[in-house]
Amino acid sequence: MHDEPLQSEMAIIREFLAPLAAGEPGAFGLADDCAALTPTAGCDLVLKTDPVAAGVHFFPDDAAADIAWKALAVNVSDLVAKGAKPRGYLMALSFPEPPTREWMAAFASGLGEAQQAFGLRLLGGDTDRRPGPLSVSITVLGEVPAGRMVRRGGARVGERLFVTGSIGDAWLGLQLRATSPGSRAWPKGIGRKRLIGRYLRPAPPLALAPAILAMASGAMDLSDGLVKDAERMGRAGGVRLEIAAGLVPFSEDARKVLTADPRLYDELVTGGDDYQVLAAVAPVQVAAFLAAAGAVDVQVTEIGVACAGTPGAVVLDANGQPLAFARAGYDHF
Amino acid sequence: MHDEPLQSEMAIIREFLAPLAAGEPGAFGLADDCAALTPTAGCDLVLKTDPVAAGVHFFPDDAAADIAWKALAVNVSDLVAKGAKPRGYLMALSFPEPPTREWMAAFASGLGEAQQAFGLRLLGGDTDRRPGPLSVSITVLGEVPAGRMVRRGGARVGERLFVTGSIGDAWLGLQLRATSPGSRAWPKGIGRKRLIGRYLRPAPPLALAPAILAMASGAMDLSDGLVKDAERMGRAGGVRLEIAAGLVPFSEDARKVLTADPRLYDELVTGGDDYQVLAAVAPVQVAAFLAAAGAVDVQVTEIGVACAGTPGAVVLDANGQPLAFARAGYDHF
Repeated sequence: MHDEPLQSEMAIIREFLAPLAAGEPGAFGLADDCAALTPTAGCDLVLKTDPVAAGVHFFPDDAAADIAWKALAVNVSDLVAKGAKPRGYLMALSFPEPPTREWMAAFASGLGEAQQAFGLRLLGGDTDRRPGPLSVSITVLGEVPAGRMVRRGGARVGERLFVTGSIGDAWLGLQLRATSPGSRAWPKGIGRKRLIGRYLRPAPPLALAPAILAMASGAMDLSDGLVKDAERMGRAGGVRLEIAAGLVPFSEDARKVLTADPRLYDELVTGGDDYQVLAAVAPVQVAAFLAAAGAVDVQVTEIGVACAGTPGAVVLDANGQPLAFARAGYDHF
Repeated sequence: MHDEPLQSEMAIIREFLAPLAAGEPGAFGLADDCAALTPTAGCDLVLKTDPVAAGVHFFPDDAAADIAWKALAVNVSDLVAKGAKPRGYLMALSFPEPPTREWMAAFASGLGEAQQAFGLRLLGGDTDRRPGPLSVSITVLGEVPAGRMVRRGGARVGERLFVTGSIGDAWLGLQLRATSPGSRAWPKGIGRKRLIGRYLRPAPPLALAPAILAMASGAMDLSDGLVKDAERMGRAGGVRLEIAAGLVPFSEDARKVLTADPRLYDELVTGGDDYQVLAAVAPVQVAAFLAAAGAVDVQVTEIGVACAGTPGAVVLDANGQPLAFARAGYDHF
């Protein structure tokens, strides 16, 4: 039966996970206890683990392919912000109930799409059953030239702040995903499906990683909202990041929403799940950074500057006054 | 208050986890989004992830220090079996409730002990809250000379099988831990505390890793019981591992138990959680392997041989007849 539950870890590995490791010699077809990875000479490994769980980071009834995509994307976004090239990942899956063959096939297909988009393969992992929510714990590995990982705290006074893509679409997508159509009056003609897609399938700006490596002094990915993550980046570098409220880039859909209800500005800049990158670039590098972003077709927008002052971040209105936010951003704890 | 709940991820990281990363430059004091690791030139990274959860892999009321030790030990045992030298680890912690300061301090102290015993430091990780059991997801990294990871399937016909330490103590410890004293008649004078300790704090034979690397053709750690894991190792190598029932090494406590109830033999050789290593060694290497084990004071016992025949493993009685087991071993799925 197509939807019979998969009762064995071995069946899941052989049928659905081993194909995701194909072409990666150090994965040994997922038939060994460990994976082996031959690092590129002269490179450091860049490592990140960011697990996701049903009901916390995604909806239990999200499509399996979307869950898989997101689980990998939220780890890859960190590599991108560090200027690293993805090399591979390990994945631990915990199921409260055995998945059906259909669910597992869809999950594997979403992972396969994400692998192809992000340029990495499954190296190894673990599958078990336990009570609690379905969880997907991915550890991702990337590489940078030795000693060159772009640090969260690298921004220096006078450097310019850039953000990739647009901000707040994922927050809008989450609202649209979480509520029934019609429960809230959204502006006519906004791209519901596109916005929900931005929430379900974050697309970290992988193509920009080499430019970040070459030209950014400091960077981090935006997972918990622009305001909160900028605050973290400013504190880490001992600088005050001044962001001009009017420069924050929004999609056409988000602009429609803001036109209808300008108070939602706060939600868009404090909502999480953007998985874009905030980067500080020295003035002398700005032209090259913009050219590099243009060459790989990644939208980057200058939104502010790193200043001397209390370490952290502020968003300034048109009069140069700091905006106050009811909540700083999303906290998973 | 000493036992007030820790309400912020930042407090947990700063106070309890960052000290575990001290001395590891690539951990950046756990203040960055990613860790960086400079691989030793000419080495492969060996990678493993094996998460543990309360109620599945440990008792929710186990001492926090023991939970921490076990979470790291069950990953390090894999490195040892691959002949790898531990380098570092990433850890994702998921709490259903904020931990108390007291619990977190004990957990960190257990991790600190394990780090020192196994020779590695915390590189990075993630802490979140979610429903479900407390879970500790560790990804461990070790190193071997390039291309030299000892494979699960490396055993060849004619090679001799060795097992480290003794078998079944952890199973006995689990019974003693799980049941109230007196609920079952155990022989007088068995070391209850020692056996429970073997369950709570597995001690993979780290000192033997260089000898395994140099002299073992194939190896794996024993997590799901000698019989089941030997079956896996035999299948992976396409050989039939013949284990002599009378050669399996038991502790003095386990021998007392077997004297009182010989039928418990089956439980001891199929019970999980040993975290010892099963290794195949070519006859020409046996003397050197034994000498190396003696030099580092790790007990190794020859228990059988790899033969031609149906791939897998059998345990043979004194008449050379295969024993039948009611259950093959532990399965976490």
